[in-house]
This record gives sequence, structure tokens and C-alpha cells, in this order.
Amino acid sequence: MMGQLTSSEIENLLQSQSICRLACCEKGLPYIVPVSYYYDGSHIYIQTLRGRKLDILRQNHHVCLQVDQILSMNQWKSAHVYGLFEELKGETETAARAAFINSVYTLMAPSVTHTFGHDTQAQLDDRQRLKPVLFRIRITQKTGRFENPEPAKASIP
Amino acid sequence: MMGQLTSSEIENLLQSQSICRLACCEKGLPYIVPVSYYYDGSHIYIQTLRGRKLDILRQNHHVCLQVDQILSMNQWKSAHVYGLFEELKGETETAARAAFINSVYTLMAPSVTHTFGHDTQAQLDDRQRLKPVLFRIRITQKTGRFENPEPAKASIP
Repeated sequence: MMGQLTSSEIENLLQSQSICRLACCEKGLPYIVPVSYYYDGSHIYIQTLRGRKLDILRQNHHVCLQVDQILSMNQWKSAHVYGLFEELKGETETAARAAFINSVYTLMAPSVTHTFGHDTQAQLDDRQRLKPVLFRIRITQKTGRFENPEPAKASIP
Repeated sequence: MMGQLTSSEIENLLQSQSICRLACCEKGLPYIVPVSYYYDGSHIYIQTLRGRKLDILRQNHHVCLQVDQILSMNQWKSAHVYGLFEELKGETETAARAAFINSVYTLMAPSVTHTFGHDTQAQLDDRQRLKPVLFRIRITQKTGRFENPEPAKASIP
């Protein structure tokens, strides 16, 4: 059985996960990358090293995020978040970074890298020398769907 | 430690998984959806009910697929596949569908739905009455990255 998640089910899904897939577009060419995120109930926060996705997002702010729990092919929940990229600066960035790190990296070693980028080794070396950039998604729409296995039919006694 | 997957590691990752995230673009707006896929070493095959992603792909054939194995935030593999949407018809479709079903649904109940779409209930009802569409991705580029935990430093005896 398939159906749509309610608003509260979408909120629960977004709150319960820490990795999403982010899609963006560069002149009609799609790009997608898994990233860790923090959702404060209002915005989605993402920290990234400099690289292709940041270059694209600075040009085209439209973002589609997808978060899921896939237990099997016929038992899953999936939410879409549509929104706009907003790079954070100054005090807003400082406060958001503290909340982000507290949320996402509580159980992780300090050396952990928190993007799953797809750049060349040279780009990667450069990026590792640079400070991560924190941005958030101003959400414009959220949708969600689910599928559960069909319940077994009662047998005739 | 982060690095790039070799060609054979990318092939192994694509062969070992059955769910990917597909991103496409509709007039500068990204869209992303998890889908099951079958990779025959040459093309990526995907079956879908009619809906938003098919509408977009018929307009803009550019696709970015992302396949991963995420064990933790600092232990993961991720591959990108870039390519072009090709809708299948006739004998090509028949042969590909048999291989697809054999690959993806061997262990699944016949009633299982094999997309993770995000359309309205009315669209969903319509789609369930229609025959799934099989398409493939003509691959133009594959890339892959990994991250492993830093090895523990040897202690001084």
C-alpha cells in the first residue's frame, strides 16, 4: 500500500535522519550528492567544503533534498524538501555552526569529513585546506510518500 | 582518508547495489527520487510508473545517478553516473524488462511497486492503472569517491 505522509510524519522523518541527498542544477545538468544535515524545524543546515556543489548552488539557488528510510523495496518512507540555498555569514553562521556540529557530529571523531564530494584529488586537496562553508535551505515545500507491504488476507476458517 | 574509487571499484559498487538516487532538471529546478535499477555493465536500466520524473526526463534527457554504501559518516563509497535518458520500446524493451525483473525483483512479491514516486494520490491512482515504462541511461561518465577512517597510529613501544 502506498500513500502520502502527513505533515507530522514528514517532520518526524526529517528529524530522525542525518543524511540526505541534495540535488541541484547547473545549466540544465543535474548534480546530486549525499550530505549530512541538521533540521531545526524551520531550515535545513548543511556544512560543506568548497567544491562543485557549492559552485553550482551559488549560481542556481534552487535545491531539492530527499530523505528516506528504506527498509525494503516495498517498505519505505521518503520525503522531498524543496527550497532555496542561503549561504550563512557572521553571527548567524557562528550560531548555526554550533547547533549543526552539536547535532550531526556528537558521536563522531573530530577529524571526520562531513561531505561526500565528487571532485578530483587536486580539488580535494585544496578543499581540505579551506574552512567549511555553512549554508541553509529556506524551505518552500515539503512532500512525503510511503509504501508498506499489503496486509495478509484473513484465511477462511 | 578520502580518495577516488578506481574504475573496477566503481563497477563493483554499481553491480552490488539495487537502489540509486536519480536527479534530473526541469527548467533549472532539480528533482531527485530513489529508484531501483539494474546495471548490465553497459547501461543502467530503470522501470517507473508514469509521473513527474518521467515527464521531466522526456523533456530533458540529462541524468545524474548516485549510488552509495554509507556505513558511517567517515566510512562510505559513493559513485556518480552521468548519462542520457533513453526510453525503450519494442523488442529492446521486452528483453531489457525480463533482465530487469530477474535482477531486481527475484526476491520480491509480484505486487511490489518499484518506484518511490512523489506525486499526488490522484496521480498515483492513475499511474497504478498504467503499464510501467522501462528506460535506460546511456552512460557518459562515471566517477567515484570513498572515505575510510584514518588508521590508528602505532604506539611507541
